[in-house]
Amino acid sequence: MSTATTSNRNVQLASEVLKQRFGERFLTGDSIREQHAHTLTYLKNQPPDAVVYAETSEEIALIVEVCGKHACPVVPFGAGSSLEGQLNAPEGGVSIDVSKMNAVLEVHPQDLTVTVQPGITRKALNAYLRDTGLFFPIDPGADASIGGMASTRASGTNAVRYGTMKDNVIGVRAVMADGREINTASRARKTAAGYDLTRLLVGSEGTLGVITELTLKLHGIPESIAGGICHFPDIGSACEAAIQTIQYGIPIARIELLDAVQVRACNAYSKLGLAEMPTMFVEFHGSESSTTEQSAMFGDIVSDCGGSDFTWTTKEEERNKLWQARHDAYWAARGLRPAADAIVTDACVPISRLAECVEETCRDIAEHNLVAPIVGHVGDGNFHTSVLVDMNNDAELSEAKKFAERLSLRAISMGGTCTGEHGIGQGKKAYLRNELGDTVDFMAMIKTALDPDNIMNPGKIF
Amino acid sequence: MSTATTSNRNVQLASEVLKQRFGERFLTGDSIREQHAHTLTYLKNQPPDAVVYAETSEEIALIVEVCGKHACPVVPFGAGSSLEGQLNAPEGGVSIDVSKMNAVLEVHPQDLTVTVQPGITRKALNAYLRDTGLFFPIDPGADASIGGMASTRASGTNAVRYGTMKDNVIGVRAVMADGREINTASRARKTAAGYDLTRLLVGSEGTLGVITELTLKLHGIPESIAGGICHFPDIGSACEAAIQTIQYGIPIARIELLDAVQVRACNAYSKLGLAEMPTMFVEFHGSESSTTEQSAMFGDIVSDCGGSDFTWTTKEEERNKLWQARHDAYWAARGLRPAADAIVTDACVPISRLAECVEETCRDIAEHNLVAPIVGHVGDGNFHTSVLVDMNNDAELSEAKKFAERLSLRAISMGGTCTGEHGIGQGKKAYLRNELGDTVDFMAMIKTALDPDNIMNPGKIF
Repeated sequence: MSTATTSNRNVQLASEVLKQRFGERFLTGDSIREQHAHTLTYLKNQPPDAVVYAETSEEIALIVEVCGKHACPVVPFGAGSSLEGQLNAPEGGVSIDVSKMNAVLEVHPQDLTVTVQPGITRKALNAYLRDTGLFFPIDPGADASIGGMASTRASGTNAVRYGTMKDNVIGVRAVMADGREINTASRARKTAAGYDLTRLLVGSEGTLGVITELTLKLHGIPESIAGGICHFPDIGSACEAAIQTIQYGIPIARIELLDAVQVRACNAYSKLGLAEMPTMFVEFHGSESSTTEQSAMFGDIVSDCGGSDFTWTTKEEERNKLWQARHDAYWAARGLRPAADAIVTDACVPISRLAECVEETCRDIAEHNLVAPIVGHVGDGNFHTSVLVDMNNDAELSEAKKFAERLSLRAISMGGTCTGEHGIGQGKKAYLRNELGDTVDFMAMIKTALDPDNIMNPGKIF
Repeated sequence: MSTATTSNRNVQLASEVLKQRFGERFLTGDSIREQHAHTLTYLKNQPPDAVVYAETSEEIALIVEVCGKHACPVVPFGAGSSLEGQLNAPEGGVSIDVSKMNAVLEVHPQDLTVTVQPGITRKALNAYLRDTGLFFPIDPGADASIGGMASTRASGTNAVRYGTMKDNVIGVRAVMADGREINTASRARKTAAGYDLTRLLVGSEGTLGVITELTLKLHGIPESIAGGICHFPDIGSACEAAIQTIQYGIPIARIELLDAVQVRACNAYSKLGLAEMPTMFVEFHGSESSTTEQSAMFGDIVSDCGGSDFTWTTKEEERNKLWQARHDAYWAARGLRPAADAIVTDACVPISRLAECVEETCRDIAEHNLVAPIVGHVGDGNFHTSVLVDMNNDAELSEAKKFAERLSLRAISMGGTCTGEHGIGQGKKAYLRNELGDTVDFMAMIKTALDPDNIMNPGKIF
């Protein structure tokens, strides 16, 4: 079963109406259209027919209504940092750019909530919040838009402590395929009021509705933040340290693994002088006494697992340098082969299988002579490889794709998923079926029920 | 818009097939049928036509398939502790009793997960887990079944720290209306693999599928648990203490408010000698030093808010006595008028509005001379009143229902919800529309798409 494909699409008619209405905010130049399609990975750029800059939710509703009349696809666009082709327009249509809808609408410090427009980026939001003593923790590395992060169910480095977007979105407003705007939930911290449409829209990659507003959970900026670094003789002992940390219930805020290849890449890109061996970056949040206690407990685990002396600091400057390097890991990896593109994988397994999964993946990389540094949010059992590929070399590309396929299937066979945080998009449709079987049919029934003409970001997930 | 009603229901035919197949596990006696319909509150008992005891997920699939052929309603039954008529059979049909499906299927201590059948109760699960050092935290008071808790998106006293069922179910298996059994997610701690059908089924009150298996998050039993109690001169100052506790980020595990009437009820029922004034029961989980620190910080807040000296203990026996009394609050409340029944309300508001909402509710209770003790999971902004009503007195019943309606609408008007944790069931369908408007239409579209003949627990939510 697949979702409907519509033969009566008429992008031309929809475009004429929108051009009339939006004037110079309706753009059709090649360059702007290409910028709004997917560019970050190996997937082919499939530009929309036009880009419209929306400034209000009413405008989004109007665009969807117009497009709905002509079965014209709509593709929501935030910051353009998604990794599985979520922004491509394989059936053409209109990219709705919400980057100008970047206001903070309401902050409720007592409730630890904020309501924002979808185009605001996570860094802009946290800059805005700074004076309140609160912050929004989800941090996928890139300065993604909050709407996009919700759409792909993003997480990142501190999900191990704060959860993913699924856990930190209280409710959304969204324009549905029929042009109606709905509000999925009240602003209460918990609810049992009907189906959880919040969680249905979070992670739906724009295929069910265009998010126009989000209410998010905020957290207090920790009184004390301690960051540190340690090395391990091999990947297995690093994974074992992660397992023990989680099992002992240490409320670690970040626990990131870099393999030796990735460390070499980061040394070069971020001018660090780290030993080129499996390395863990960690961070603890809490009161002074709590972060001291956590750091000491973690140090004991590292030592038990054969790791190097664990050194940590609460100095902001030193911590920031480390985490900037971690966030630049993707660009550092690409620096290993500047002319190449990257296929980024996103396996996530139960943590008990993590060492096995990473080790098998390392052997696979070595056996096939790939350049594929590894970084992992190991507290969640999630890790990425960036396979560097010369896209003009078909044999190489084919080899890399086969590797990515083996990795997805390996994760699935270990009780895990082919995507911990990047989403299905265009790149992982086949693996979704491998992973969940007939369950995909029920997802498709929901898609068809809510978007019968398949106008909402068609060609993604299904 | 409402979901389909089916005119071609033939419960008789379905029953004949099931009787043939299940023999003495297929029961039609009046008493057993009444026990399987809703009994705990004021809602009228609407028994199913028959009760089938299922022992495997294959049997559940068979029952649903047979019932599907004849458009016969199926109503899943776990422990019978739901509060909004979720177990009633207003259109007749078959109650699927899963209480014998109460096995623990797999424990993965390293992953902090457990996979269980739906009929196991939370207490039985925690008894089973004791030796692992792990526990399942969600605690709605009643010894509910895990399947039922997932179906109503239950939470309870320690949701403020551990979240609700939405946060603690990793994935479910469920038999859908067409008889197919699906698995909503892998066992990985996070996923971005398609629509979040886990969260769609959690809280769907049996209207989309019958849950046959659940994989849950577990947590380490805290090294130290400190419990305590304090009194406040009025409800407002107690709420203020709750707000400050949350805002300061104290990771409190339980923070429960009882009003003076409820304290009086608990004193009588549980033989306590507490001062009859607004009272807070709290609990802290962590390391020894962390619970000490948390208790001290909380004590300061209580004192700032005009509360009594905060006394706390780590002695298990004393703590257990207090929490047993809290868990018996419902029965204690009913003890205030033994011949009466209770209408239990479930308002949940953003915590900044909690004091206002509770105070207005207290005035409403006083003005209408109701007996309606209040207990609240105040860290979540959630509180319950148990309005004690003589069901044979129409005027009294009508007055109580009007009060409950005012309370639901009051919560909604303050940005909250008519149900924090009990669900919509039969009792709150009108308020769901008040709260979420057209959003309910989209829920109904999903219901119709996945269950076109409306056989799955019809008459609930919609």
